[in-house]
Amino acid sequence: MKQLLGAEIRLAARPVGEPAPADFELVTAEVPEPGPGEVLVRNTWMSVDPYMRGRMDDVPGALPPFALGSVLEGGAIGEVVGSNDPDLKIGDTVTHFAGWREYSVVGDATRIDTTIAPPQAYLGVLGATGLTAYAALTDVLKVKPGDVVFVSAAAGAVGSVAGQLARRFGAAKVIGSAGGPLKTKKLIEDFGFDAAIDYKAGDLAARLAAEAPDGIDAYVDNVGGDHLEAALDRLKVGGRAALVGSISGYNQRVPGPSNLMQVTYKSLTLQGLQVTSYLHLFGEYIGLAAPVLADGTLHAEETVVAGLAQAPEALIGVLRGANTGKMLVKM
Amino acid sequence: MKQLLGAEIRLAARPVGEPAPADFELVTAEVPEPGPGEVLVRNTWMSVDPYMRGRMDDVPGALPPFALGSVLEGGAIGEVVGSNDPDLKIGDTVTHFAGWREYSVVGDATRIDTTIAPPQAYLGVLGATGLTAYAALTDVLKVKPGDVVFVSAAAGAVGSVAGQLARRFGAAKVIGSAGGPLKTKKLIEDFGFDAAIDYKAGDLAARLAAEAPDGIDAYVDNVGGDHLEAALDRLKVGGRAALVGSISGYNQRVPGPSNLMQVTYKSLTLQGLQVTSYLHLFGEYIGLAAPVLADGTLHAEETVVAGLAQAPEALIGVLRGANTGKMLVKM
Repeated sequence: MKQLLGAEIRLAARPVGEPAPADFELVTAEVPEPGPGEVLVRNTWMSVDPYMRGRMDDVPGALPPFALGSVLEGGAIGEVVGSNDPDLKIGDTVTHFAGWREYSVVGDATRIDTTIAPPQAYLGVLGATGLTAYAALTDVLKVKPGDVVFVSAAAGAVGSVAGQLARRFGAAKVIGSAGGPLKTKKLIEDFGFDAAIDYKAGDLAARLAAEAPDGIDAYVDNVGGDHLEAALDRLKVGGRAALVGSISGYNQRVPGPSNLMQVTYKSLTLQGLQVTSYLHLFGEYIGLAAPVLADGTLHAEETVVAGLAQAPEALIGVLRGANTGKMLVKM
Repeated sequence: MKQLLGAEIRLAARPVGEPAPADFELVTAEVPEPGPGEVLVRNTWMSVDPYMRGRMDDVPGALPPFALGSVLEGGAIGEVVGSNDPDLKIGDTVTHFAGWREYSVVGDATRIDTTIAPPQAYLGVLGATGLTAYAALTDVLKVKPGDVVFVSAAAGAVGSVAGQLARRFGAAKVIGSAGGPLKTKKLIEDFGFDAAIDYKAGDLAARLAAEAPDGIDAYVDNVGGDHLEAALDRLKVGGRAALVGSISGYNQRVPGPSNLMQVTYKSLTLQGLQVTSYLHLFGEYIGLAAPVLADGTLHAEETVVAGLAQAPEALIGVLRGANTGKMLVKM
């Protein structure tokens, strides 16, 4: 029997600063047979997330660094084309974490219900990014009615969901920041934010102070750097920030906020989160999000590039803010 | 009847950078009569704490900024010399928060038990700084047996107590940092730390990595800046930092740590604390600390300057690290 061949993307070099195409290598390799309990999946969609940049450095974290010369990893959706798992049959659509390749052999694929949402939604609004927003607002920030909430990178996959969830949880005002007039217009018109700040247009801190003269209760930080600094100055006594991402600092170390003593003065809590710690909330979150996604109340956007070979450019792009909503590769 | 006169220290100017003597003004003023329920206290000891520098700036915080031209405020101990409070009689020794003056008229003085410890202990190891250490280790850090704990400014009033409490709570290793060989020697010999790092001697981050090759579970931050950066790199996944003080940043804004994305990668929690939020733990803490202070198991040091007129120099000194243990003014 002829061995199956599949394309995959390997880490060719550890990036210095912004990743370059040469840091990735597209290789065609033999696909192993699925072992006991495993399935063979032909991938159809792949998730592209800013945090992946962190795994390209040789620095320990909640997820280990990608190994040089090895295939990268990330969320993906595909169709089962071979199965040794009695619970999954050929033709099932599944989600798993062995993306960056045409075919994946996995032991922990999960079947998804494509009758309530298109498959790629399970990588974004109904997937890890949506769950991240939900965990940030519930477990970390405990957003409650009347809160003033600030969300950075608010047109991104996590931010756009976080803003809408804050509204659903009764926030008095939801303020988002994004880069450029098109994105900020979208924050108001499509994602339902009460106020939008174009951080590229000028003084983020002054704009935030003007939008929240009495301070903010909770901050969803996807940016770090100047955004976190502005938020620390505006957070009320006892306020909380969920440190979800640091898009300003993935490619290079940037100085942290110079006002961290505000954390002490105002008894603030800054808490980092990894979605892998919140998988137990997935059912609860899908129960909330799927119906409102289906009826159009929850608005999700996608930025799609075509073909596995484009995945490196998609990652470079998402780190530059090229996306609105979820960045995806359609295989 | 002749009006009572008393010396007091007022804020003459808001400091730029390090406070200068000219930012303070020593004035003799009339002392008001105590009103109903109030007592007149002749102060004998005054607390000098780095956080006071923050209140000299016109920036809102858990405690409001000192007003220009007004008497400063802070913890003090004194003797009741006039009383309209049926629960306090002349001759009682009390603690209150209206320091920086020779005589205070206060409505919320608390009698202290000078049979179990000398009065000034209630400003330090049995007072706000001791309680700060206790709240940091229990409520914020939840230190448990086996933890590796790092404490910065470990020879200071909060740090020296925090290190000893961490040991009592079963920490596997307690590492402290301080400036200079005399202080680091004291950490080991007098305060019982397992390891001491002289941050002035060289590479703090490398020394911390060498002392904690498998990482640290909890960090008591009294410094900010480079110390917080080194700790963020060493904290284990799920680790916690109590942001108690920022001695590196009170006099001027310093850049924050450039590795705050570690908070996200490792699901860390950074929590600021103000001791005023933990007054409900005072009884519990005194119950733990007073006996071990009395039997010598808990070691406390004091750096004492004499006379109210020296209080500004004492504050300038504590911000420079001139003290070991608690900085006090003996009136």
